[in-house]
Amino acid sequence: MFHAKIKSETLKGIVDVVSTLVDEAKFNINADGFDLKAVDPAHVAMIEMKVENGAFEEFSADETELGVDLDKIKEVLRLARSGDIIEMEQDEEKNRLILNVGNITRRMNLVDISGMSDPRVPNLSLPAMVAVTSDELQKGIRAAESVSDHIALTATPEGFEMYSEGDTDSVTLRLPKDLLISLDCEERARSLFPLDYFSNMVRSIPAGSVVSISLGNDYPVKLEFEIADKKGSVRYLLAPRIESD
Amino acid sequence: MFHAKIKSETLKGIVDVVSTLVDEAKFNINADGFDLKAVDPAHVAMIEMKVENGAFEEFSADETELGVDLDKIKEVLRLARSGDIIEMEQDEEKNRLILNVGNITRRMNLVDISGMSDPRVPNLSLPAMVAVTSDELQKGIRAAESVSDHIALTATPEGFEMYSEGDTDSVTLRLPKDLLISLDCEERARSLFPLDYFSNMVRSIPAGSVVSISLGNDYPVKLEFEIADKKGSVRYLLAPRIESD
Amino acid sequence: MFHAKIKSETLKGIVDVVSTLVDEAKFNINADGFDLKAVDPAHVAMIEMKVENGAFEEFSADETELGVDLDKIKEVLRLARSGDIIEMEQDEEKNRLILNVGNITRRMNLVDISGMSDPRVPNLSLPAMVAVTSDELQKGIRAAESVSDHIALTATPEGFEMYSEGDTDSVTLRLPKDLLISLDCEERARSLFPLDYFSNMVRSIPAGSVVSISLGNDYPVKLEFEIADKKGSVRYLLAPRIESD
Repeated sequence: MFHAKIKSETLKGIVDVVSTLVDEAKFNINADGFDLKAVDPAHVAMIEMKVENGAFEEFSADETELGVDLDKIKEVLRLARSGDIIEMEQDEEKNRLILNVGNITRRMNLVDISGMSDPRVPNLSLPAMVAVTSDELQKGIRAAESVSDHIALTATPEGFEMYSEGDTDSVTLRLPKDLLISLDCEERARSLFPLDYFSNMVRSIPAGSVVSISLGNDYPVKLEFEIADKKGSVRYLLAPRIESD
Repeated sequence: MFHAKIKSETLKGIVDVVSTLVDEAKFNINADGFDLKAVDPAHVAMIEMKVENGAFEEFSADETELGVDLDKIKEVLRLARSGDIIEMEQDEEKNRLILNVGNITRRMNLVDISGMSDPRVPNLSLPAMVAVTSDELQKGIRAAESVSDHIALTATPEGFEMYSEGDTDSVTLRLPKDLLISLDCEERARSLFPLDYFSNMVRSIPAGSVVSISLGNDYPVKLEFEIADKKGSVRYLLAPRIESD
Repeated sequence: MFHAKIKSETLKGIVDVVSTLVDEAKFNINADGFDLKAVDPAHVAMIEMKVENGAFEEFSADETELGVDLDKIKEVLRLARSGDIIEMEQDEEKNRLILNVGNITRRMNLVDISGMSDPRVPNLSLPAMVAVTSDELQKGIRAAESVSDHIALTATPEGFEMYSEGDTDSVTLRLPKDLLISLDCEERARSLFPLDYFSNMVRSIPAGSVVSISLGNDYPVKLEFEIADKKGSVRYLLAPRIESD
């Protein structure tokens, strides 16, 4: 059983973050809220999300798993205006999810979850941690996109740097310690990442968010931030690209 | 003879409504204004329009018929700013229409009207009638577009409903009596329509208009509304799609 | 040696005007500012530009020539917000240009200038001269674009006219003397031009500028205007298209 009401903006924030990596996702729902784990089809990136029931205007649920086609939720969100409440209800008999916005009702088949097992989350020890606003990350990404399809992230005891290098040009965004929200780094940590993945992840983060970036040397990066008015948390993991030289 | 001045917004409203169904149209002009009847190339939909001379800032005409390429009028409208007056004059000698906006003059050849006879308007008896704002219709159409290319319109003594059904999903917009401007329906009337036509018609209706919808069972729908600051009226007819089951 | 700071809007104005004709350009820099001459690849149009060091917030330079890929400058400009200052520095050792906006650094290879000699500017005697706002020119171009790919410019002692003629339609923008900023024309001068070139040139002129148009009969047109808050001047030359009739 699942029946809930949620602000359209809150639902949009949740869907944007998940749909960056997958088109369909399994929401593990219980009385306290829901969580979700998913890996992108190329197995390069992972998302873990937890949202408590306080993120909803109304929430009542037994333990249940819902396989959802995220594009369909986006279609409904496009019908909502800012401030609209979206009502969601599971129709267990027909294996459907029913969404109401104003006087519109959308009934959608749920996705078969038999093949959607939760991925195992790797246990990583990442020595450096930087907290920065999502706006600064977005700036660095826009700069990088014109020169390369990779981006190197570097933390040092002095600050944080995003660097991209193409055949003829290079771009650096340098954030010294005083432009960071926090910095916890004893020695230099640097890894290279595919820019498209990193860019899509960062773009899905709500504007004005604080993002915690955990880094190692040629190791995955972990991005953590809050959504749903601090009633939900997201953790992205992105595999590094090992430099060949 | 035809010479008139008209606000660019008013002319745009007229052209948008006609060009939804046809690229070229024959305007039947006389001293009182003009009327127009046209059928779309696939013979699925029809428009009847009447605009009185009071919709114009200035208007003087003898009885004449003008074949007009509507895209050319749109090109001129794109040069006008809100509040601009467009002057139109027939050049009988050269069989042209001359439009002036500010210090720009556009001369356009008229379209040959020898093959453009006025279509016969069918005499329909449609038992149900619903009046609703164009904004509600637009909402229902946007919701329907993501699940199907058909839309069913249903009037009952309790209200009005727009319903679309695809392979896996369905969408309903339900407008109970109190959300309608008026409802005149003794028994259920329901017909199915091609969504693209219905959508284009509804989108051409000026925002904030009241639309009268006349419905039968597996019968054409009639949409009626006013344009040109109530100095003009439009009647759309759309053929139903007969359901196979 | 070249090191300068400039408002992003000013740099954008400079780049827009040059990139209308060429993708790469040679900037001839000295202590007083820079100048530039370039011909488009089809040899139909030419630009001469002069910008004094007062257009910059800071400027220090020895005589040097910089070959610049203008698209790369545009990429950096897209990272700047209105009011941002862009710092530019030549890295002579690596033959690079380094641009800084905020905490972003972009390093770009300079373009090989060995084949980029300054074109010879023809000495033209153009009898008519019209001064008009760029906004009026833009209006005339938008009107012309829907009927033809040529535009005729005509100056007479009474005013200035832009005229385009297609197979079925024609468009005129007529600017009588009192709508012009100045008019110096003893007898009618008329030439025909390719609309795409003329349109691109006019669109690159900052909104609200005054443009001096010098015209002859079947002769090139010269467009002159100021940029960089009157600290720079641009001269465009465009070859006529000789009418075949």
